[in-house]
Amino acid sequence: MTMNKQWIYARKPNAQVGPGNFDLREAEMPQAGNGEVLVRTTLLSLDPASRAWMQGQTYRAMLNPGDVMAGWGIGEVIASNAKGFEPGDLVSADYGWQQYAALPGRALTKHDKRHKPEHILGVLGITGLTAYFGLLDVGKPRPGETVLVSAAAGAVGTVAGQIAKIMGCRVVGTTSSADKCKWLVNDLGFDAAVDYKSGNLHKAIKDACPNGVDVYFDNTGGDVLSAALSRMNAWGRVACCGAVSNYDTGTPSPGPVGVPGFLVTKRIRMEGFIVMDFYNRRREAEAALATWVEQGKLKPAIDMVEGFEKMPTALAGMFAGQNRGKLMVRV
Amino acid sequence: MTMNKQWIYARKPNAQVGPGNFDLREAEMPQAGNGEVLVRTTLLSLDPASRAWMQGQTYRAMLNPGDVMAGWGIGEVIASNAKGFEPGDLVSADYGWQQYAALPGRALTKHDKRHKPEHILGVLGITGLTAYFGLLDVGKPRPGETVLVSAAAGAVGTVAGQIAKIMGCRVVGTTSSADKCKWLVNDLGFDAAVDYKSGNLHKAIKDACPNGVDVYFDNTGGDVLSAALSRMNAWGRVACCGAVSNYDTGTPSPGPVGVPGFLVTKRIRMEGFIVMDFYNRRREAEAALATWVEQGKLKPAIDMVEGFEKMPTALAGMFAGQNRGKLMVRV
Repeated sequence: MTMNKQWIYARKPNAQVGPGNFDLREAEMPQAGNGEVLVRTTLLSLDPASRAWMQGQTYRAMLNPGDVMAGWGIGEVIASNAKGFEPGDLVSADYGWQQYAALPGRALTKHDKRHKPEHILGVLGITGLTAYFGLLDVGKPRPGETVLVSAAAGAVGTVAGQIAKIMGCRVVGTTSSADKCKWLVNDLGFDAAVDYKSGNLHKAIKDACPNGVDVYFDNTGGDVLSAALSRMNAWGRVACCGAVSNYDTGTPSPGPVGVPGFLVTKRIRMEGFIVMDFYNRRREAEAALATWVEQGKLKPAIDMVEGFEKMPTALAGMFAGQNRGKLMVRV
Repeated sequence: MTMNKQWIYARKPNAQVGPGNFDLREAEMPQAGNGEVLVRTTLLSLDPASRAWMQGQTYRAMLNPGDVMAGWGIGEVIASNAKGFEPGDLVSADYGWQQYAALPGRALTKHDKRHKPEHILGVLGITGLTAYFGLLDVGKPRPGETVLVSAAAGAVGTVAGQIAKIMGCRVVGTTSSADKCKWLVNDLGFDAAVDYKSGNLHKAIKDACPNGVDVYFDNTGGDVLSAALSRMNAWGRVACCGAVSNYDTGTPSPGPVGVPGFLVTKRIRMEGFIVMDFYNRRREAEAALATWVEQGKLKPAIDMVEGFEKMPTALAGMFAGQNRGKLMVRV
């Protein structure tokens, strides 16, 4: 009898998350109830938000120890009691960290098989939509402007920076190593990159952005946000996508100096967003992103980890800055 | 021979501003040069921004010791070499703290004498425009929403809160004493008021805003901003008007905890503004404000100090929270 391996969110992290916070469990195979679909997961996504879900209520209820760890993924329909789904369909949902899941049909999105599953989970999925709507609808860059992206080598950052290039902007990224800086510039076409751990962050951003910053796509909060605010131009925009610097810690940093002072004197708009708020426009974004990928203007950066057993170590590695692009696990 | 009394900004404050930072000087009467207008000042305005001008560059160049202290005022034209101005005209400008000023005609705004000079300097002037555009164009309140205003007993706060009431909102103000709380509720029609010095600020704001905060009109930054952010509703808006908590100090506070965390999870928009950016729409605002004053819906709150000699002590008193409404000095 086939069992369903699950990673249980077992113990709340006091500071950094790691394998000690999870337990591997074998559960019975779920069954597709009335209106439900049974899915075998094939790819599972690891996201900075995973850590925030453990910390408190976000846009979703807080995770509690004992829950199957939450997470989005791609899967294949095994059995269906829901209209519109049949075995073999390629579907995505918040399956959680498990090999099989039974979910109501309305919780699933069906995908066109002409796209690669790893693109659906990354550049054409939540990751790509987050970059697309956050940059274009919240940041609103104009050609010739300078766009700064933090956690630029991460899943969303790699896409946001490349979209900004497509829009005709000068693009600068921050990341956590000299190697990743080179990768951003040489492989992904960023105009410059800053290693935020290398010393004087304010000066490094100033040097990399000689005309100031018009749009800051903020994935991190913390020190990079403070430094960016000090370099923002008048009428600059900060698209607040996440605060990864504060997720994986027991001691959140104080807020950025210069809030609200810089906001007033420089008429800065800081605006938070959640990609789900734009979900009714996802077809527009998917079409644009897919076209850019086909044209070779947008390179999907995928960091693939092989093996369901590696989920917790892969998550910890992400917070240690080890991934390049979209981190996912092949189940 | 008539002399021109001036208050000189003589010494930069290390912390709180006071009379010791200014020197009274008698200068020669200025003359109206070609294209200029000679004005006798009658009312001079005292503003929180006065302190920020000493600290660094804002939307204007920093003041330097030795300068005539800057400030807006109302005056009467004494002599004119500029087209469109003649003796007896009621005019406003940044005259600085002095009894007479000669300025180019383009630096002056001429006013309709049917309005009281103290209204032109307050509710119909920069103060009123700041409240009007900041609340309506940046905060964008809708009827039934909760609007929180900090420094609510101050010049801009008294107007912003009353406009929010006119818009059909529930309005809560923060201020620095129980007496001023009573005044806001009993005299100006606020629904509730919070003395931010009285103890648990977070709890007090929670109690006063049982449905959360939809729009926060921020005049202060600092602790009230932090507390407001924790109570903001999803899609809340923070109109950043000023940061008076940080002006009159040598040690600016760290930024608010929850930036950017709350901004992301609650999709909050924080946006700074400078009233001058809306100056091309001033007639719209003046007309609306004047109509509300005539209808008795908007009470101009004026704190009038008699005597030019009292300018520095009046400014210090403002930062000590002594004024109620628009603080001005009759020259």
